[in-house]
Amino acid sequence: MRAKKNIIIEKAKNIKLLAFDVDGVLTRGEIIFNNGEEMKIWNVKDGVGFVELLRVLPKIKTAWITGRKSVQIEKRAIEMNINYVIQNCMNKKVAFEKILKKNRFEAFEAAYIGDDMVDIPVLKIVGLSLCPVDACNEVKKRVDLVSILKGGEGVAREVIELIIKAKGKWKKILGKYK
Amino acid sequence: MRAKKNIIIEKAKNIKLLAFDVDGVLTRGEIIFNNGEEMKIWNVKDGVGFVELLRVLPKIKTAWITGRKSVQIEKRAIEMNINYVIQNCMNKKVAFEKILKKNRFEAFEAAYIGDDMVDIPVLKIVGLSLCPVDACNEVKKRVDLVSILKGGEGVAREVIELIIKAKGKWKKILGKYK
Amino acid sequence: MRAKKNIIIEKAKNIKLLAFDVDGVLTRGEIIFNNGEEMKIWNVKDGVGFVELLRVLPKIKTAWITGRKSVQIEKRAIEMNINYVIQNCMNKKVAFEKILKKNRFEAFEAAYIGDDMVDIPVLKIVGLSLCPVDACNEVKKRVDLVSILKGGEGVAREVIELIIKAKGKWKKILGKYK
Amino acid sequence: MRAKKNIIIEKAKNIKLLAFDVDGVLTRGEIIFNNGEEMKIWNVKDGVGFVELLRVLPKIKTAWITGRKSVQIEKRAIEMNINYVIQNCMNKKVAFEKILKKNRFEAFEAAYIGDDMVDIPVLKIVGLSLCPVDACNEVKKRVDLVSILKGGEGVAREVIELIIKAKGKWKKILGKYK
Repeated sequence: MRAKKNIIIEKAKNIKLLAFDVDGVLTRGEIIFNNGEEMKIWNVKDGVGFVELLRVLPKIKTAWITGRKSVQIEKRAIEMNINYVIQNCMNKKVAFEKILKKNRFEAFEAAYIGDDMVDIPVLKIVGLSLCPVDACNEVKKRVDLVSILKGGEGVAREVIELIIKAKGKWKKILGKYK
Repeated sequence: MRAKKNIIIEKAKNIKLLAFDVDGVLTRGEIIFNNGEEMKIWNVKDGVGFVELLRVLPKIKTAWITGRKSVQIEKRAIEMNINYVIQNCMNKKVAFEKILKKNRFEAFEAAYIGDDMVDIPVLKIVGLSLCPVDACNEVKKRVDLVSILKGGEGVAREVIELIIKAKGKWKKILGKYK
Repeated sequence: MRAKKNIIIEKAKNIKLLAFDVDGVLTRGEIIFNNGEEMKIWNVKDGVGFVELLRVLPKIKTAWITGRKSVQIEKRAIEMNINYVIQNCMNKKVAFEKILKKNRFEAFEAAYIGDDMVDIPVLKIVGLSLCPVDACNEVKKRVDLVSILKGGEGVAREVIELIIKAKGKWKKILGKYK
Repeated sequence: MRAKKNIIIEKAKNIKLLAFDVDGVLTRGEIIFNNGEEMKIWNVKDGVGFVELLRVLPKIKTAWITGRKSVQIEKRAIEMNINYVIQNCMNKKVAFEKILKKNRFEAFEAAYIGDDMVDIPVLKIVGLSLCPVDACNEVKKRVDLVSILKGGEGVAREVIELIIKAKGKWKKILGKYK
């Protein structure tokens, strides 16, 4: 167990790109239409995580990659200063590799969090792969770490803290709040 | 236990029609009115399931049969390419048998997933009957399989995967994501 | 345990009036404002329960008594054919006793389901008192039966089935679905 | 255990100011945008708690301190007669100490309930510090009491009852409902 934990921390140290699926990861996977617009229910703790990540590790690039599309995703991503927001994405691996290439990153320098089949091609190539506890079984079998949280319950926050700690910046986080 | 599982798989091999109740199965059973319109909260994993079903088993017919009526059900069903959407349905068995007849299917070639008393007449005649774990007791007593998921948590996805696996198409699903 | 269950059934046999608090009983206790209107999220299984109650025990009177007020409560109550809908109620016991008097019912002929302090004066006088599992402690201490369900998860349905069974009408319910 | 409980009660006896974070404490931490407005989902039991607090301990000051801003927070705070509502707050400790100073209260005479890092500077100085069970780990480590409830499930109500009981006013609460 501790051995596995150490491996995860070693992998997290390399991360330069942190990429997320949206529905079922940043949300509970609820699809809600309201007056013709698609509503998303975000988690306040994830939001704090993205703000803190930018503060203590400003060079880490962030990406949200989703097969769906809504104005609310775009607005929330802007508020969170996400570097790449890819919506209507038919092939996540292609989109993901473009981001890697543009930044001259290797796949082992990226982490990805996804919950469904469509995320597997990305989860398989990244250096650090994670999923929420309610991800589909094929995903849970293939990732480095399954969170104890469900999608929308703060999974992004958990991953962000893992990376901040692995990179030795946790004291900088705590320092602000003391 | 394994014996029962094998029986379920044998039953699933026959399925040509896959029919669902809506409230409490595809949703958590929440009745929400918003500006005069009835809102539904769908599950993204169920949505992926319907798309995959159409891809690998395009000949399987799908149906949503509900006693209620809302524009959002119709819109979501179109997005999911559901073959038959019966709303305001006073007698589910009659509606269901019409679909069977139109397709020259026998009842043992159909699966149905419902959660309440009104679903019992259909659940009793189909080849494979299922319900979410929060279905009413009279339903839970009568079905072939009670899901470990509640309504709206991905029950449709679970049933779709069961049928895809029983019909030997699971490798085709995985193949796309490798 | 069985002794207690028998007492509950005996009490349920007497019921002529079935009264409910709204927030935290028929809903999860969520207070949601949307465009100036108060939204309520109802449970589809409770809805089925009210329809069935009217069908097999049409003489039983029903009441919803709430300290709040919203158009959505009124609309849902009309849809459910609730006999008395008392909103903005400052004194539930007074409102409740008026309903008793108008119908010449005794308190032991009434059941009430509430979840908070303001419900205690009514819970103390009725023949059968119940609450959801997430009711406040002072309520849980005082009722005949604590449901295993939370508010909004189908508590009303559970109570309605209890009364239908106690009055020997359960076979009439099942008969319709066979 | 009992020793710890007694210490909490002693601390609660001193409280003259009761202050709350909003998202993740008074709500489940859901961030919901609807037609350009930020929606909040409140808990009816918390609402009853604020009303009762004002009735039996009218001299206790209340505050809501949040880093976000929405019209719905302001409206709900007015309905609940909250004394200080600080929105868009960049430094909660500064805002909190202004309230203390204005009322000539000492920090040990204040209780604060928060769930995230930004709440730590206030949680560390108050006489009584609390958090919901789904607060972030750094918060859970530092508070006097971790509730068994999640944010939005009635944490405010629980804290209010603790203070009312510690100050010997619980019988006055019960008296109204007997």
